[in-house]
Amino acid sequence: ILGAVMKLWGFIAKAWKLGVDEPKKVIHCFKVGMALTLVSLFYYMRPLYDGVGGNAMWSVMTVVVVFEYTVGATLSKSINRATGTFLAGSLGIGVHWIASQSGEKFEPIILGGSVFLLASAATFSRFIPSVKARFDYGALIFILTFSLVSVSGYRVEKLLELAHQRLSTVGIGISICFLISMLICPVWAGNELHLLTHGNLQKLADSIDACVEEYFKGSDSNSVSETAKNLEGYKCVLNSKATEESMANFARWEPAHGSFNFPHPWKQYLKIGALMRSCAYCIETLKGSIYSEIQAPEFLKEHFGEVCISLSTHSSNILRELAVITNTMTKSSKIDFSVGDMNYAVQELQNALKSLPSQLNITSEEAQEEQAVKTAAVAPPLLEVLPIATLVSLLIEIAARIEGIAEAVEE
Amino acid sequence: ILGAVMKLWGFIAKAWKLGVDEPKKVIHCFKVGMALTLVSLFYYMRPLYDGVGGNAMWSVMTVVVVFEYTVGATLSKSINRATGTFLAGSLGIGVHWIASQSGEKFEPIILGGSVFLLASAATFSRFIPSVKARFDYGALIFILTFSLVSVSGYRVEKLLELAHQRLSTVGIGISICFLISMLICPVWAGNELHLLTHGNLQKLADSIDACVEEYFKGSDSNSVSETAKNLEGYKCVLNSKATEESMANFARWEPAHGSFNFPHPWKQYLKIGALMRSCAYCIETLKGSIYSEIQAPEFLKEHFGEVCISLSTHSSNILRELAVITNTMTKSSKIDFSVGDMNYAVQELQNALKSLPSQLNITSEEAQEEQAVKTAAVAPPLLEVLPIATLVSLLIEIAARIEGIAEAVEE
Repeated sequence: ILGAVMKLWGFIAKAWKLGVDEPKKVIHCFKVGMALTLVSLFYYMRPLYDGVGGNAMWSVMTVVVVFEYTVGATLSKSINRATGTFLAGSLGIGVHWIASQSGEKFEPIILGGSVFLLASAATFSRFIPSVKARFDYGALIFILTFSLVSVSGYRVEKLLELAHQRLSTVGIGISICFLISMLICPVWAGNELHLLTHGNLQKLADSIDACVEEYFKGSDSNSVSETAKNLEGYKCVLNSKATEESMANFARWEPAHGSFNFPHPWKQYLKIGALMRSCAYCIETLKGSIYSEIQAPEFLKEHFGEVCISLSTHSSNILRELAVITNTMTKSSKIDFSVGDMNYAVQELQNALKSLPSQLNITSEEAQEEQAVKTAAVAPPLLEVLPIATLVSLLIEIAARIEGIAEAVEE
Repeated sequence: ILGAVMKLWGFIAKAWKLGVDEPKKVIHCFKVGMALTLVSLFYYMRPLYDGVGGNAMWSVMTVVVVFEYTVGATLSKSINRATGTFLAGSLGIGVHWIASQSGEKFEPIILGGSVFLLASAATFSRFIPSVKARFDYGALIFILTFSLVSVSGYRVEKLLELAHQRLSTVGIGISICFLISMLICPVWAGNELHLLTHGNLQKLADSIDACVEEYFKGSDSNSVSETAKNLEGYKCVLNSKATEESMANFARWEPAHGSFNFPHPWKQYLKIGALMRSCAYCIETLKGSIYSEIQAPEFLKEHFGEVCISLSTHSSNILRELAVITNTMTKSSKIDFSVGDMNYAVQELQNALKSLPSQLNITSEEAQEEQAVKTAAVAPPLLEVLPIATLVSLLIEIAARIEGIAEAVEE
């Protein structure tokens, strides 16, 4: 029993931490509660609104199913639901009318056949990637409504009345969702995407710094947990692909809000995301080399330490500046200078590489018997240094790309 | 108009290709159609089953919402739906009874308050990762049912009857889904996960081969498109994280089937997946170096070509063998020998590295003025070779890990 209590306690503690870390989510929960209470009371007091009547159940349902965390998701689901219901409803009534005209014997065959065909087709459409990304929910609702309507067994006049009622109840549910999600502490998918990109740029910068520092200085100095946390930062970047895509997808449905115009280049965020990920792959490889078994000898570390740290500082500075740029959405001329500085750091690093073999020759003249040791030692620093060079070229690419975006945003 | 027709045609062609490529998905569509037709006809002939009556709508709804592509997903959703409905139904009736006892004035307050609180709490629980992974849909249904029941305005006796009806209709829907999804061409999430892992292992092997070949041989020889396709293979591995996780999650719900026992170590697949991804990151970096601006001079390519190709062949052979092992789920002793071969290839590569500087010295004695060119040239081959070394250590790790799984499967 104690174990179960402890487990429950751990669960509650975790949930509490989640709530404290992200108050937006807690607010969202209250928003859902509020929307449901509103629509429930509306339904409870239905004698006042007899036109909507017993079908008001559909309002409750709509609110529960449609209300999502971000405004974009709510809008997209609402529009999907309304369109799906309307299309399937009209089609269902049509099929029903045909079936009722064709005699009692053929009626179940026509109804069953049409349900079979349309349900199969709609299910298949949900597998097509472009449909799945945007109209998945609409297709589901289409199947649902069509089956319900075509099989309901009512006469067509009664059906039209029902359809009218259902559309109006769904409309009530949707409008309550719209109002609450957009007026009370709205969570815009576009904004979330923006924050995610901003945060990822900074995490990437921290990771690069932490990686290089860890390699050259060792982790004995200041707070180890801090460095370890920064080292792991790039993993968020690796795993944020799905989130980015769904956010960008929802953001497209959102109207203009805050500093975002309506046709905001959301796709650019996906591009930045992809470039950030390719950069994060390099960091992953780099990190592998930090903990690899073959380690560079001290004198090589010293030889490269300064230039590498300077390069990583320049790179991470660019990333931080880009984060600022994406945040304020203003074009900064500083970025060009920073890129210049970084390229200069790359040059220095290449010079350091060129000066290395001569140094090795000197030492090999001193002691021939150590030759084998030293030649084996040539590898590790290059292993160490060259991923950074790769990284740098990626960073430059990202820099160029984000400059383009800054321009696109400015327009 | 012509543009629209062309677009539509392109869309249809794409959909057709999807259907031909994955006939399983087409079969799934027909299964959905069949389940819906069955339940619709059941509902249509409701005079025969008057006990289920007008509420039979819920069966249709259940089928539409619960029927998923894999058996595991269907089971998980069904169990979630049944549990959510049952829990929320009982709770709703309880709250309704309390409200009805407390006088007309307090009734709406109690009902509204309880809806607000429980809906907020349930929504919050959907944000907790462990709940979200498994009980997301259950929480949604809980909110839905609770709001519907507590606000319905019926007397408690009437409610109990309704609850009974609703549970039985949901039960009918669920059992039709179970039968059709498990008996007719079942698509097991576990099996899909298995195939995905198998395919990814092979794609990884192809990518390694293609990468190294591309680098040393150039792409002028045989079919370029083939190599390019293989080169891109690792990207599937990079992007399969989300699919793997959801599959593993659904696979846990599935009963024993085929060659999979019930407590099959699905989590091991996630581990393999993570290791494959870390391997794919290395390939990504490696590929970056293939197309980098700095290229190694020909004589260095020749020097390393043979050992690198032999190493990559060994590595990809291991991956292919592992693919066979995961496929047949039998322990193969060959794998140990292969790992040994690969380690030997690693040794050879290291020897090649060691022999390099002496070779450089010879050339530098021949022509001193070319020194600068050559020292600059030291970097690229190492840049090229060392990611492979990193890769190899990762491969060995994967090999060790998958051996463990092969043992776990054998038990």
